Amino acid sequence: MAIRPSLAVVGATGAVGSTALQMLSTRVDVWGEVRLVGADRDVGQVETVRGQRVTVEPLTEELFADVDVALFAVPDTVSTTWAPVAAAHGTVVIDCSGAFRQDPDVPLVLPEVNPAQVRKRPRGIITSPNATTTSVLTALSPLHHGWGLSELVVTSFQAVSGIGRAGVQRLYDEVGTLAGNRRVGQVPGDVRRAVSDLPEISPFMGPIAYNVVPFAGRLMDGGWTSEEVRLRDESRKILGVPKLKVSATCVRVPVVSVHSLSVHATFASEISVDAARQALIEGPNYVVVLDDPASGEFPNPADVVGSDPTFVGRIRQSPDFPRSLELFVCSDNLRKGAALNMVQLAELVAVELGAVIPEDD
Amino acid sequence: MAIRPSLAVVGATGAVGSTALQMLSTRVDVWGEVRLVGADRDVGQVETVRGQRVTVEPLTEELFADVDVALFAVPDTVSTTWAPVAAAHGTVVIDCSGAFRQDPDVPLVLPEVNPAQVRKRPRGIITSPNATTTSVLTALSPLHHGWGLSELVVTSFQAVSGIGRAGVQRLYDEVGTLAGNRRVGQVPGDVRRAVSDLPEISPFMGPIAYNVVPFAGRLMDGGWTSEEVRLRDESRKILGVPKLKVSATCVRVPVVSVHSLSVHATFASEISVDAARQALIEGPNYVVVLDDPASGEFPNPADVVGSDPTFVGRIRQSPDFPRSLELFVCSDNLRKGAALNMVQLAELVAVELGAVIPEDD
Repeated sequence: MAIRPSLAVVGATGAVGSTALQMLSTRVDVWGEVRLVGADRDVGQVETVRGQRVTVEPLTEELFADVDVALFAVPDTVSTTWAPVAAAHGTVVIDCSGAFRQDPDVPLVLPEVNPAQVRKRPRGIITSPNATTTSVLTALSPLHHGWGLSELVVTSFQAVSGIGRAGVQRLYDEVGTLAGNRRVGQVPGDVRRAVSDLPEISPFMGPIAYNVVPFAGRLMDGGWTSEEVRLRDESRKILGVPKLKVSATCVRVPVVSVHSLSVHATFASEISVDAARQALIEGPNYVVVLDDPASGEFPNPADVVGSDPTFVGRIRQSPDFPRSLELFVCSDNLRKGAALNMVQLAELVAVELGAVIPEDD
Repeated sequence: MAIRPSLAVVGATGAVGSTALQMLSTRVDVWGEVRLVGADRDVGQVETVRGQRVTVEPLTEELFADVDVALFAVPDTVSTTWAPVAAAHGTVVIDCSGAFRQDPDVPLVLPEVNPAQVRKRPRGIITSPNATTTSVLTALSPLHHGWGLSELVVTSFQAVSGIGRAGVQRLYDEVGTLAGNRRVGQVPGDVRRAVSDLPEISPFMGPIAYNVVPFAGRLMDGGWTSEEVRLRDESRKILGVPKLKVSATCVRVPVVSVHSLSVHATFASEISVDAARQALIEGPNYVVVLDDPASGEFPNPADVVGSDPTFVGRIRQSPDFPRSLELFVCSDNLRKGAALNMVQLAELVAVELGAVIPEDD
């Protein structure tokens, strides 16, 4: 009989954690007991997973004695403290924070690109990439395989759920405040003034309704943000191309979920739009090409939200750049960008531990 | 005594035209009679210009007999028909449509870059660039002067007013429909479904509230849009660099006014962030550097709307690209992107015709 490892979801009530619970209820079920762990204010809350009601527990060291695999969908600081505690109990930790992504002893894994890395985990921790990195590399992996990625210039349109529920609530709050006003956004400062009256302090560095905020993450050296630096460092680590040239600009936009990326990708050899499109269409089923603008078909958040694949469209080449392609990429930052990738990684570990995933009929 | 040429504003009631009227009321006044021309439905409407009430007239050939300079803030098709009619009467036409921008006999002019071109107008028509081109080149002109621009990779975040009042009304309509819903944007298709109930047909190729639409303009060869092709062709013509390498991705975002641009600019020689910032700060006063992210200072539409300069920030350089810079540029697409540039061009012609613009005290 197949083994069914036990699983804990740490941060089960957050934006990413609750998306992970939906996935556990819809994917092939390889798990034994599933335990839910939440912040103090959510302990005792009851969530439904796989049709069963499960009560949220507090985060304690004892918990991990009985847990084979733990998904950590929590802030960096919580992961930094608690992931090693769980790992010391033999629990395999799948972390989606930024805490361990550049640790050489922690594999950074996209199942579509470097799945074998999950077994090389001397610290007992596996980490899932940032949502923007996941989207870009998932879309580009079939092209990297064929033509060898050498340079990336990326501009992101990042959804507010990328910073969790607080981001989503803030967008709804600002839109609610401004919605009746059919003159707003035409006069200097009126959006900023209106949203500054809201009771909560914004998690964003400017108004997010009727605006775009070209700053996501923390400020780093040279004026770069942590989101921009991560896209470079994580892409290099996952692809195993330490000299990959990367320059990113990360911008927050008033979209609830789904990150969009405008990608200028340069390859080692000349590439054509037709060959690239063919490689993406015939390639792995986790990439969907949506590219018929004459029929209004291109990736956009309103259509992509709630979907698992990464969507690619607006595939173009300027004659000025024969080794480059332009692509517009969308994927759901809470799903493939976070919860789905974690669950995929956890399933790889479950199989390693003896679970069996049946082939499709 | 200084000559005061007469001026007509054709399309005076549209988004760009009404912005031009505000400018005529606030800038140094060089004009004699100002006449307003509108579509049939707006004829008879009374607008205030320079403190005076002026009645909107219909567009007729006779009108131009008494008009020295005409601003055309109308769709391409109207310009194509009527600009030559006006020019045949000796009226100098300043057009902001896309109708004549690639005509070799029509100068395409940014006053900050190639002002002398206004006098070379064999057809009697001068044309103002697309708003995205204007923003990018205004910001880059001091850098092009110092380091020689060779490549541009640009992603735009374009405001809905870029397509006129219909775009603005559509955004307000969609936001109004969705505002009460604090779950919207989390489920596949719900935004699209909700906005499809609106009585008007959208001028955009997808929902614009809680979404981004990676398609602006008309579809051209190779999957490019007219907005993307214009940025390339107009940049080459204005800078006089026919081999300039350009690749653009133009995206519509739920912002009322102000286009934002993420610019990856490559130069003929190595450039540093400090030298570039210095050149922009000490350079012409039509560029304002807003670049102190530690204090939350960067260009964004909510702060820039209603301003005349072009704002530049997030100035960075990846060590991977020593001849390139990343910049985030914002400028008001109705002002510098359209009405202001037209009024500036008209003032250059007015001076040529004998008007006098007094020096500042």
